Amino acid sequence: MSVEQFSVRGRLADTGEGITGDELQLAARNHGMPMEALRYDVTPAGLHYVLVHYDIPMTNASHWRLTVDGCVEQPLSFGLTELRAMGRRTVRVTLECAGNGRAALQPRPISQPWLTEAVGTAEWTGVLLSDLLRAAGIRSDAVDVVFTGADHGVERGIEQDYQRGLTLTEAIDSGAIIAWEMNGQPLPPQHGYPLRLVVPGWYGMASVKWLRSIELIDHAFEGFQNAVAYRLRTGQDDAGAPVTRIEPRALLIPPGFPDFMSRHRFVAAGTITLEGRAWSGWGPIERVEISTDAGVTWQTVKLDAPGNDEYAWRAFTHDWEATPGEHVLTVRAYDASGREQPIEAPWNRGGFANNSAQRTSVLVT
Amino acid sequence: MSVEQFSVRGRLADTGEGITGDELQLAARNHGMPMEALRYDVTPAGLHYVLVHYDIPMTNASHWRLTVDGCVEQPLSFGLTELRAMGRRTVRVTLECAGNGRAALQPRPISQPWLTEAVGTAEWTGVLLSDLLRAAGIRSDAVDVVFTGADHGVERGIEQDYQRGLTLTEAIDSGAIIAWEMNGQPLPPQHGYPLRLVVPGWYGMASVKWLRSIELIDHAFEGFQNAVAYRLRTGQDDAGAPVTRIEPRALLIPPGFPDFMSRHRFVAAGTITLEGRAWSGWGPIERVEISTDAGVTWQTVKLDAPGNDEYAWRAFTHDWEATPGEHVLTVRAYDASGREQPIEAPWNRGGFANNSAQRTSVLVT
Repeated sequence: MSVEQFSVRGRLADTGEGITGDELQLAARNHGMPMEALRYDVTPAGLHYVLVHYDIPMTNASHWRLTVDGCVEQPLSFGLTELRAMGRRTVRVTLECAGNGRAALQPRPISQPWLTEAVGTAEWTGVLLSDLLRAAGIRSDAVDVVFTGADHGVERGIEQDYQRGLTLTEAIDSGAIIAWEMNGQPLPPQHGYPLRLVVPGWYGMASVKWLRSIELIDHAFEGFQNAVAYRLRTGQDDAGAPVTRIEPRALLIPPGFPDFMSRHRFVAAGTITLEGRAWSGWGPIERVEISTDAGVTWQTVKLDAPGNDEYAWRAFTHDWEATPGEHVLTVRAYDASGREQPIEAPWNRGGFANNSAQRTSVLVT
Repeated sequence: MSVEQFSVRGRLADTGEGITGDELQLAARNHGMPMEALRYDVTPAGLHYVLVHYDIPMTNASHWRLTVDGCVEQPLSFGLTELRAMGRRTVRVTLECAGNGRAALQPRPISQPWLTEAVGTAEWTGVLLSDLLRAAGIRSDAVDVVFTGADHGVERGIEQDYQRGLTLTEAIDSGAIIAWEMNGQPLPPQHGYPLRLVVPGWYGMASVKWLRSIELIDHAFEGFQNAVAYRLRTGQDDAGAPVTRIEPRALLIPPGFPDFMSRHRFVAAGTITLEGRAWSGWGPIERVEISTDAGVTWQTVKLDAPGNDEYAWRAFTHDWEATPGEHVLTVRAYDASGREQPIEAPWNRGGFANNSAQRTSVLVT
């Protein structure tokens, strides 16, 4: 028997095929943010979505080293204390998994089966990546920056440490930070303790957890997670475009109360103030529209004042005159880059960046 | 349309039926403890399993009141500050969801689809329930104690606040506490902020979260969660025995590293120290056995010294001479009450208390 036998290429679910045992194993380990947690400006750590490709590694902060090397004037190596001396800033960032919405696609790509809940907003404290790179001295032959985590596993037959690359321009211009705190506490184990990268505006796969190495290289990075895994492919053999920044999305806090099993919502008739959040990695949110009749008519919601953080979600409210009967609530976001959230996003084979509009069914009694 | 239409009685999956959309919605909201987190004596808050029947309620600690009334000499009402003045103790408790293991049953009861991960151990700080009851003065006509949370929803057509009862004897003898801290921090929202019940040794359904009322009543409590939901039934119309204390279970930290999708494990040949934890709500763990050949032969593992807390899990280790090839690792626990963990637990319709032995497949290379 061989590793390849237990580590196969992804497939699409057959028509009508239920969630598989493999998908369930991932859904039981990883977790989303329950929609009612949209009520918090900053998501409490245990409610923020988590996706871990392999195992959460056993790490030791007192011995932890982060190296910065490759195409630099002076390779550097930092312990936690040395790193803290390099600077300290806190930034509020909305992170979303690139696979959010995957389980609703037809056909369904078999992988972590997210519905709409793979999101969260945290305050990350650390040092600017660009400050570290400048401290090491960026050589003129540097092209890409490769970030390596301590998490180790196999994916489609390839044994690997989790590793992602950014171009040098992306690494510097994104405002990425090397963080050691989440919401004012040391990082929880599942969020990268003791050290992680946070790339504001990008889907979560870019924000390498358990970060131990930053290497500048003189060519384009062709590692698995950049060149193979996170690509927008329509066919099995497409090269596909890379998954990068977060597409605009709005989500509503489901009103009223739920049924345990169906999660259907119930609410008494009257004026109901609906609340939600919207975000985009491409630019500030400029408008959110809501439909309370399953997309037939749309109204513009009231956006809260924007915060200071460009890549944190923005809250909105909308007063709804709820009349008895069954209603489907839908919201969609528009950002300053001109992107608009589609009712139904185009399909792709990995199930990435699916920002199709959320639908919340409510029985008004 | 009516509430009942969206809130139906539970059913069993058909032969070969995949995990349903309803089950996935629950799996994406609630979450288990990844098996590698068995490495922690005390589970970090965001890794501890969570099951919430309805929504996490919006609560406000500064206005929170807990009332103690019914068959008492003097009804009492406590704010958080007053409650803290009643006493303070910390107890380490292993909690497990009554539905842990459900998704592996044949046929599968359709509900929250746990595999083996619905467990966690925390240090809960609060005041003894028995001290509160004595402060109120237990009247001689008191029979049961009813605990009501702030979480509200519908289940099988019944609209309800989550509510569970214990007999007066169980309430006092269990060492239950009213907790306001988890691992030295205020309770996270999803674990009952600002106040919850913790009943050591009992499956999690007894430990009512967002606790706002304790009522002593003069008759046996017949509420939904005691009389209807948490029962060990074999047929649809059985009355069934109540689900109470946690059955013995041992779990192993999966060795080596995983494949992302199949979660199959890979490890290099040689001596591998396997580690795990075992617990029971019926008495201290006395022995744990391991099989590295899919249950053909068994050996006794080395148990760590027991801790001070009767209902916290106990760690164990076992040196395994791993030889190349595919192996199935299995562990089983024995407790001081004489209960032994079965290889395959008897089936019941709700999928409760399923402590069938974990099976971990490992390819040794």
